[in-house]
Amino acid sequence: MSGQAQMPPMIDWAALEQAARKARANAHAPYSGFPVGAAVLADGSIHAGCNVENASYPVGLCAERAALAAAVAAGARGIEAVLVVAGRPTSPCGMCRQALAEFGAAVPVRLVGDEGAIETDLAVLLPTPFLSGDLCR
Amino acid sequence: MSGQAQMPPMIDWAALEQAARKARANAHAPYSGFPVGAAVLADGSIHAGCNVENASYPVGLCAERAALAAAVAAGARGIEAVLVVAGRPTSPCGMCRQALAEFGAAVPVRLVGDEGAIETDLAVLLPTPFLSGDLCR
Amino acid sequence: MSGQAQMPPMIDWAALEQAARKARANAHAPYSGFPVGAAVLADGSIHAGCNVENASYPVGLCAERAALAAAVAAGARGIEAVLVVAGRPTSPCGMCRQALAEFGAAVPVRLVGDEGAIETDLAVLLPTPFLSGDLCR
Amino acid sequence: MSGQAQMPPMIDWAALEQAARKARANAHAPYSGFPVGAAVLADGSIHAGCNVENASYPVGLCAERAALAAAVAAGARGIEAVLVVAGRPTSPCGMCRQALAEFGAAVPVRLVGDEGAIETDLAVLLPTPFLSGDLCR
Repeated sequence: MSGQAQMPPMIDWAALEQAARKARANAHAPYSGFPVGAAVLADGSIHAGCNVENASYPVGLCAERAALAAAVAAGARGIEAVLVVAGRPTSPCGMCRQALAEFGAAVPVRLVGDEGAIETDLAVLLPTPFLSGDLCR
Repeated sequence: MSGQAQMPPMIDWAALEQAARKARANAHAPYSGFPVGAAVLADGSIHAGCNVENASYPVGLCAERAALAAAVAAGARGIEAVLVVAGRPTSPCGMCRQALAEFGAAVPVRLVGDEGAIETDLAVLLPTPFLSGDLCR
Repeated sequence: MSGQAQMPPMIDWAALEQAARKARANAHAPYSGFPVGAAVLADGSIHAGCNVENASYPVGLCAERAALAAAVAAGARGIEAVLVVAGRPTSPCGMCRQALAEFGAAVPVRLVGDEGAIETDLAVLLPTPFLSGDLCR
Repeated sequence: MSGQAQMPPMIDWAALEQAARKARANAHAPYSGFPVGAAVLADGSIHAGCNVENASYPVGLCAERAALAAAVAAGARGIEAVLVVAGRPTSPCGMCRQALAEFGAAVPVRLVGDEGAIETDLAVLLPTPFLSGDLCR
């Protein structure tokens, strides 16, 4: 409408949290005892994941990348929001920030714990990310 | 029924292949140009994934682990079958074999290409896997 | 001594760059065509590494983590400086930032290219890192 | 010399074990409590590494890949032998088998524990590895 600034898309954080909590309930985290759930909003749809640990720790997968993989497999590409649920509000690890940055720059990120939440942004969490353009020689 | 050996569960390979091909169509593989789709049958349900590459190559995710993550997030634990689709029948990498071995020992694996397929088994692909019991000190 | 501010340790950036360049010459980067060398100063000694790529891209290793691994294997723990050499000044990926953050917080990082360099700091590159304390439930 | 079969190179397992044990003493394994050391013989020289764990478990590095990275950074390419030391003889995880297979096919592997050792081979541990030739489309 004329005279109005363009509005960012509404993010249904409650729906993201519900999806992330449901995935978290299925986390396979016998080694860390630290179950995590994550959900991403991508191209308007919600995709969730949990951590999938492995006896060989480096082979495990974090919840954020599991959620991202679900989004990509469904054909979504543009990441619009990320929500992470753990016992306390917990920042994604650097590896997950890097994975997410492949699909979005300034993405709102909500970190939810049992008591309260923190709002941040992927651009804050991973300044000057390593992107495809960096591979030029 | 008395006097009969227990039958292994029927595996609907056609349904697994359909799910894997659908995921493969969404693969994010701009760096390798090698799109892969995978599907796992776990606790009777099918879960699929594709590779999700990253500008920082080690941060990428293979299709097999993406499919496994979808299964785990859905609450499935017992892996009953794995199917992988690529241009040619292609063995999972060692990392994916290790990830799958966390959830199953003798699991039939079907490797599908554009022309033909190969049948194998996780126990053949990863003998003496590294398992949780190995972490005892 | 009274009246004097405590001085940070001197960092021999030239020695770090020499070590990183020597390692870079041995990089195994046939898939990306993007050879990288890195060096870390840890507990006063210099350790270098290069990227070690793999046909299964996620199995590869970045130069920064290779250098870190060399430092740790030699018994060093406190990371005092990191230098990365590529064709152009290139930020470490998020995974490497996370790996380095395990061993140091505010660590000067120098990104060197064929023509010029950029100075930054690990605390800038990875704000609110995921650390061992976050694993408390 | 005519009439004689070519002999395989002599492998100094004692030297490999000494290097692996020295690296293992420096392992950073606070999360698993499972320190591992590894050594590779490559192009005639010995290179060692230990596991380097991270609060974000998937960001960690296994000893075998750390040793491989040291070899590659030093310019070695042909892996001739691998030795792994842990409390008990322990097979490399699938990810490390994949990493090693990039640089050698039939490579003798010795798994050493506090009491006794097991001899095996990379070709046994990772049949039909995923190699660069598989990336052809």
